[in-house]
Amino acid sequence: MNKAALFSIIKEKKSFLCVGLDTDIKKIPDFLRKEKDPVFEFNRRIIDATADFCVAYKPNIAFYEAMGARGWESLQKTMAYIPAGIFTIADAKRGDIGNTSSLYASAFFDKASSGFDFDSVTVAPYMGEDSVKPFLEYKGKWVIVLALTSNSGSSDFQTVKTAEGDFFYEHVLEKCLKWGTDDQLMFVVGATQATSFAAIRKIAPSNFLLVPGVGAQGGSLEMVAKFGMNANCGLLVNASRSIIYAGNNENFARLAAAEAKNMQQQMQVLLEAYL
Amino acid sequence: MNKAALFSIIKEKKSFLCVGLDTDIKKIPDFLRKEKDPVFEFNRRIIDATADFCVAYKPNIAFYEAMGARGWESLQKTMAYIPAGIFTIADAKRGDIGNTSSLYASAFFDKASSGFDFDSVTVAPYMGEDSVKPFLEYKGKWVIVLALTSNSGSSDFQTVKTAEGDFFYEHVLEKCLKWGTDDQLMFVVGATQATSFAAIRKIAPSNFLLVPGVGAQGGSLEMVAKFGMNANCGLLVNASRSIIYAGNNENFARLAAAEAKNMQQQMQVLLEAYL
Repeated sequence: MNKAALFSIIKEKKSFLCVGLDTDIKKIPDFLRKEKDPVFEFNRRIIDATADFCVAYKPNIAFYEAMGARGWESLQKTMAYIPAGIFTIADAKRGDIGNTSSLYASAFFDKASSGFDFDSVTVAPYMGEDSVKPFLEYKGKWVIVLALTSNSGSSDFQTVKTAEGDFFYEHVLEKCLKWGTDDQLMFVVGATQATSFAAIRKIAPSNFLLVPGVGAQGGSLEMVAKFGMNANCGLLVNASRSIIYAGNNENFARLAAAEAKNMQQQMQVLLEAYL
Repeated sequence: MNKAALFSIIKEKKSFLCVGLDTDIKKIPDFLRKEKDPVFEFNRRIIDATADFCVAYKPNIAFYEAMGARGWESLQKTMAYIPAGIFTIADAKRGDIGNTSSLYASAFFDKASSGFDFDSVTVAPYMGEDSVKPFLEYKGKWVIVLALTSNSGSSDFQTVKTAEGDFFYEHVLEKCLKWGTDDQLMFVVGATQATSFAAIRKIAPSNFLLVPGVGAQGGSLEMVAKFGMNANCGLLVNASRSIIYAGNNENFARLAAAEAKNMQQQMQVLLEAYL
């Protein structure tokens, strides 16, 4: 799915919502635990409830990996269940030397190898160009590089000042932009960093930004749209816990749908205001 | 396994060799492909051949993940097969916001959750303190943080000069040292960076360093020992491809044993010279 196709879906659905499938076996409703694969059964119902309101799904790979091989099986089934025409993000934050990053790329992009065929994967930049490039070799796939994240630890390294006077994450953005086009590269920028969006848009005006941190982490959707939206929307705003754990018993899917719809409606207003 | 126990094994085996189990299904000898689980059968024979000469095994998780759920099963069997008293490293280079890093920690440290009980895991530092700390909460386990890696891309970000005049990787070392003890924290420093070992030892004199890049990547074992060894050895030097792919037919295990023994003997000389 290229940038134009993604923008088409955003316009059609009047939404730039990404639903984070951070499915924690300890947090799903009790009544699902009797199922053979409770994590998949939870995800299936969440997808049914939210697919009309979102343009992307983002399973956080840690939640599946924490369950060992059976977690990967739940993830396989989940990905097979997501309807066509919805963008998929493997939130994996991988990155290693070139020959190893090639294997990580196979893990998420090469269906014949791993069974997975994600549209995109999140990548940590610390190891530099050869750690990112193997992901860019897959035609039609996206690499989403961590730039300025939503968590408290983001100030430990990402906002260190370099000798040239910019923030370290700005140096990351500038370097990465040389490695791929805006049809290949997105960046992670946390919603809790809304005051930085204007500066980031000066460096990366045309790239999509994946924005976590609205909802449970406290970021403002309005601020993100105001300072982050570009002519092609350029935003995928993720919400995980606030949607998937909106309820905790038989009502969970209905409440997830209501919360996703609520966010879609806010996004519709913002798209009309800023696009 | 604490630092003293690790040093005891090093002295007993006269080795600080870590064998990297970067097992690529495309590179294993043909005759193993008829086995039900070729990757495990390869690893089992490599472990039998090299266990006397090494103190650690380091599966690179990408190689297993690239095969989907069946890759994780091969890894489970491999880990169960490694003899007691050998240090194990999940080379995963994970890292995410706090609640997600907790899940990654479960994935590698919590046997009840994932089936895995590694002694240590490699972690990427970009997301800062809350991305690293959840791994440190497991008593007796180790976090191995990427500092100065062996690949060409290491110069893109790790050796950027900060406004304070140090290299970015030095800032990473200094920050991380505040988060855990030298019984919890190791750092990855590439053997190809031998000239930096003296500077790194000024910042982190007592931590173990995990050193990839000897062998296929061209780093010098002598230089690493000369500038990196401390009073407790403080080094785990990894070799992957040069050992596990020393042969490519029925002779592969015998040639892997010979190459591991060759490295152990070089290490014995260096331990006698510098310890």
